[in-house]
Amino acid sequence: MLYFKCSNHVGERFGRMLAIGKVPLPTLERLATYLTALTDLRMGNVETISSTDIETRTGVNAPQFRKDLSYFGEFGRPGIGYNVRDLHARISAILNLDRTQPVLLVGVGNLGSALLGYPALRAENFRIVAAFDNNPAKIGKSVWGLAVKDIADLTTENARLKARIGIITVPSSAAQEVAEKLVEANVATILNFAPAILKLPRKITVRNVDFVQELAVLSFYLTKES
Amino acid sequence: MLYFKCSNHVGERFGRMLAIGKVPLPTLERLATYLTALTDLRMGNVETISSTDIETRTGVNAPQFRKDLSYFGEFGRPGIGYNVRDLHARISAILNLDRTQPVLLVGVGNLGSALLGYPALRAENFRIVAAFDNNPAKIGKSVWGLAVKDIADLTTENARLKARIGIITVPSSAAQEVAEKLVEANVATILNFAPAILKLPRKITVRNVDFVQELAVLSFYLTKES
Repeated sequence: MLYFKCSNHVGERFGRMLAIGKVPLPTLERLATYLTALTDLRMGNVETISSTDIETRTGVNAPQFRKDLSYFGEFGRPGIGYNVRDLHARISAILNLDRTQPVLLVGVGNLGSALLGYPALRAENFRIVAAFDNNPAKIGKSVWGLAVKDIADLTTENARLKARIGIITVPSSAAQEVAEKLVEANVATILNFAPAILKLPRKITVRNVDFVQELAVLSFYLTKES
Repeated sequence: MLYFKCSNHVGERFGRMLAIGKVPLPTLERLATYLTALTDLRMGNVETISSTDIETRTGVNAPQFRKDLSYFGEFGRPGIGYNVRDLHARISAILNLDRTQPVLLVGVGNLGSALLGYPALRAENFRIVAAFDNNPAKIGKSVWGLAVKDIADLTTENARLKARIGIITVPSSAAQEVAEKLVEANVATILNFAPAILKLPRKITVRNVDFVQELAVLSFYLTKES
C-alpha cells in the first residue's frame, strides 16, 4: 500500500523531487540503513569511508550502495571515498531528515509507550511531539515526559504541531477510525502497527509493521527436524 | 513456476518442503496476512469465502491471492469458493502454525515487555515461552506472567523448551552477541528489532524490524507543502 506521487515543485530539492517516483522501495530502505551507519560514524568522528566500509557496516555490497546513491546524483570521489559528514548531510536531506520531523502517536498501550521511550528515533531527527489515547484513565498522564492527550483534540493539536507523520498503536478494531482522524488532521504518512488493512486516500503513504506476519514468515522456514 | 497438486496431508507437507526455496517472499508475507484474516473469519463463524472477500479484507487483489495459493496446490472450488476452516488449516500447515510455535525473547526492556504482552501472537499459535535478560535487577522478576531468566542459561533452558524462533529486543551494541547465543541454543530463525546488522551462519533466517528505517521511508515521501 505504497503510493508514489509526482510533484512539479521546483527548487533546491528539484533532484529529489524528480527522483521521488523512480526510486525503488528497497533503495529507500537501504538509504535509511546507510543513514544510521553514517550517524554512528559521525559520532565516532570518522571523516572518510569507502563503499567497502559501508558493506562491512551494513551488509549491503559496494556496487549496490553506489547504485542506490546514483538515483540522487554524484557522491564521493574516486580513490578517496566518501566524506562522512557530507554523505550524512545529503542522505538526511533526501529523506527529509535534515530538519526535525515531528511525529504523532495514537494509542498509548504497551507498544505505544515503548515507542515513546525509544531512543533511536531521536538520533535521526524524529520527535514524537504528541501522544493520544481515548482512554480517560490515560489522558493527562505523563508517559516518558509527554502528557497523553485526548484523541478528540487531534486536529486542533496538529494545527499547531504540524506533524506530517503518524504512528498507530491502537488495537486493530480501532485502526481505520484512527487513521482517518490522522488524515483529517493533515498527516500524510502513517506507520501502522495494528494488524489491519487501512483504506485511505491514495495520496496517503502507509507502512505496516505486523509482528505476527514477521514471525509467520520465519516460521515457514523452520524444518521439522533441528 | 512449479505447481504441486497434492490433496492429502502427506502430499501437502511434501509439496511444502519442495516449494520452500521457491516461494517469493512477498507471497509468504501475504500468506501470513490471509491467515490473520481467516482467523478472524473463523472466530466470526463464516464458513465460505470468495477471493473477492479476501480482497476486501486484506487489500490483496483476487488474482494475486489465487497465484499465491497456487504455489502450494489446489485450493477452493469454482463457483463455491473457499471453505474458511479448510483454508485456515492448510495455510497454518504451510506456515508451520498448525502446532504451537515456542519463541524465545531476549531483552526485557520497554519493547521486549510490550511484545511479551502482545495478544495477537497467541491467536496464531506463537507462544513466547521464555524471556531472558542480563540485568540482575530484571532476572527473576515476572513480566506478563513470565519469570525473566538469566541470559547465561539460554542454551540450558532451550534444550528443554526446544524453541526454534528467537526475538531480539536488546540495544544494538548487544545484538550480535545475543544472536550468536540464540544460534548456539539451536534457534534457527530470528526476528531482530535492534538496528544492527547480524552476521550469522547462512542457515539462519533473520528478519529485521527497524522503526527508524520505517519512519525514514515515510519521511522521504513528505513534500514541503501540505
